[in-house]
Amino acid sequence: MKKYNLAVLGATGLVGSTIVKILEERKFPVENIYFLASKKSAGSIVNFQNKDYVVEELNEKSFDKDIDIALFAAGGAISEKYGKLAASKGITVIDNSSLFRMDTDVPLVVPEVNADSIKENNGIIANPNCTTIQAVVALKPLDDKFKIKRIVYSTYQAVSGSGLGGLKDLEEGNVECYAHQIQFNALPHVDSFLENGYTKEEMKMIDETRKILKNEDIKITATCVRVPVKYAHSLSINVEFEKPFDIEDVYKVLENAPGVIVRDNGEENLYPMAIDIEGKDSVYVGRIRKDFSLENGINLWVVADNIRKGAALNAVQIAEKLIDLK
Amino acid sequence: MKKYNLAVLGATGLVGSTIVKILEERKFPVENIYFLASKKSAGSIVNFQNKDYVVEELNEKSFDKDIDIALFAAGGAISEKYGKLAASKGITVIDNSSLFRMDTDVPLVVPEVNADSIKENNGIIANPNCTTIQAVVALKPLDDKFKIKRIVYSTYQAVSGSGLGGLKDLEEGNVECYAHQIQFNALPHVDSFLENGYTKEEMKMIDETRKILKNEDIKITATCVRVPVKYAHSLSINVEFEKPFDIEDVYKVLENAPGVIVRDNGEENLYPMAIDIEGKDSVYVGRIRKDFSLENGINLWVVADNIRKGAALNAVQIAEKLIDLK
Repeated sequence: MKKYNLAVLGATGLVGSTIVKILEERKFPVENIYFLASKKSAGSIVNFQNKDYVVEELNEKSFDKDIDIALFAAGGAISEKYGKLAASKGITVIDNSSLFRMDTDVPLVVPEVNADSIKENNGIIANPNCTTIQAVVALKPLDDKFKIKRIVYSTYQAVSGSGLGGLKDLEEGNVECYAHQIQFNALPHVDSFLENGYTKEEMKMIDETRKILKNEDIKITATCVRVPVKYAHSLSINVEFEKPFDIEDVYKVLENAPGVIVRDNGEENLYPMAIDIEGKDSVYVGRIRKDFSLENGINLWVVADNIRKGAALNAVQIAEKLIDLK
Repeated sequence: MKKYNLAVLGATGLVGSTIVKILEERKFPVENIYFLASKKSAGSIVNFQNKDYVVEELNEKSFDKDIDIALFAAGGAISEKYGKLAASKGITVIDNSSLFRMDTDVPLVVPEVNADSIKENNGIIANPNCTTIQAVVALKPLDDKFKIKRIVYSTYQAVSGSGLGGLKDLEEGNVECYAHQIQFNALPHVDSFLENGYTKEEMKMIDETRKILKNEDIKITATCVRVPVKYAHSLSINVEFEKPFDIEDVYKVLENAPGVIVRDNGEENLYPMAIDIEGKDSVYVGRIRKDFSLENGINLWVVADNIRKGAALNAVQIAEKLIDLK
């Protein structure tokens, strides 16, 4: 089996350290691995497969090494500074930032949904926004079968989406990472505000969902909210289909969908919940029911671990698909 | 000024004790006041206007007293046992439970919205569900102006909606009041599940919104979620209007709406938040923006104190309107 040379940028952060863990768990065929970071984190130790590695400081020459795939999880500024440079050296970059996602020549990939887009890459593949990833894993099989016309998203997002600072604000009742207290609060504010009144996070959900589902005609709106949950984002999704359907068929489609686990039995108080899904790889769907306010509509409750499927796992899955194609 | 004889049922509970506090704050013209409760709470002391009252045990004869208005906040079972009995003795019952809300001969009242319905009462007036109250205060003036066609509700509900037990589960990390841990979690489960896959809470929002807005044609769907917030419910509301509108007019309508305060400036991180609105009387509206996925749609974020405007305050406001009519 061929082995690959990897670089991980930002391996000491919440997403980066989870990438390292998942590469181990899934036995990714690694020949050599390099851990790179900005000055601040350089010199830290990262353990991978029972071996300690010193994190090297990033510079223009970092990408002269023999690297096949570089997993970028060090923030938008690092992606901007080094993303295209790495790609220009023949490295395939899997970028976790929002920087390249909407570029027409950059595939935006959720392997269960559009793995075929990977082969169109020109050196950079973008990992979508966390909330979008879990949404499209659930929505893609439904779109294939019933054709989605419109989506209304309301999110319940965990603080780990903001990294260790978010967790600290929640656990200690601080107001450092967020504009306001998150403990015992609900903040309708994820990422910064745009002139149209939406937040960047809301526009990411709208734009990225369309790009990944390859359907610019889907009407989408979103309200993104941070809640006092540590891990796993929950989404309330209202979907209008073009085609009529039986609710039993919606169940069947979801039960057979790749990456989806249906957990739905009100009588037994069974539905996806953040605390259960922390650390899990699948996207969990429940509260599946017809929306009686529409001719062809449903409501869904969709929960996934925002650090794993919403970021690190999805990036590693992209890398796995990439080497399948090589 | 005429003064009235009141009875408060359930005055030691979260809603009941807030009713007592609000009667004091708003200087309700009280001649005599009686505090009534089931055996469990009888004998407790309630302080009202610097005077201690002993809570009397409820029985069939409790309503032979000279009472003008009885505020019921002791749960559905007590309302069922004593509501109609009290009304039959000429007492006007303002009932906080869901028991009578959908009865065609019982007005369901939010004073800012449909105070006129009060005069149609036959001895019982129902106080609506907490989430519905705050929703309709914001939606009524918009319905008047732009005619609402469809509503999609997603809620972020505080644990105080479940009384002291909910607060205890959140603060201590217990699993007693709820089916699952609420700390660091989001539960898509408020009240019990029905056969159609919705919860009772979701159906209350759907049915009560239509009744209060006096429009059975409005299409409504809802997903109700409990979050780790102590006081104040937040709602993500997506609204489709029949008429076209300028977003500036939506702002103007809301800014001039009775009981509404607009708090909306993304640049300054200004939006309604549960922790700010705890203890406040108004319904706070923010994140007001056009929904680009519809011809005539908007998104709103609506927050109010579920114990005050969502329950106790609304009941006292009904009593105030009632005596205006007497």
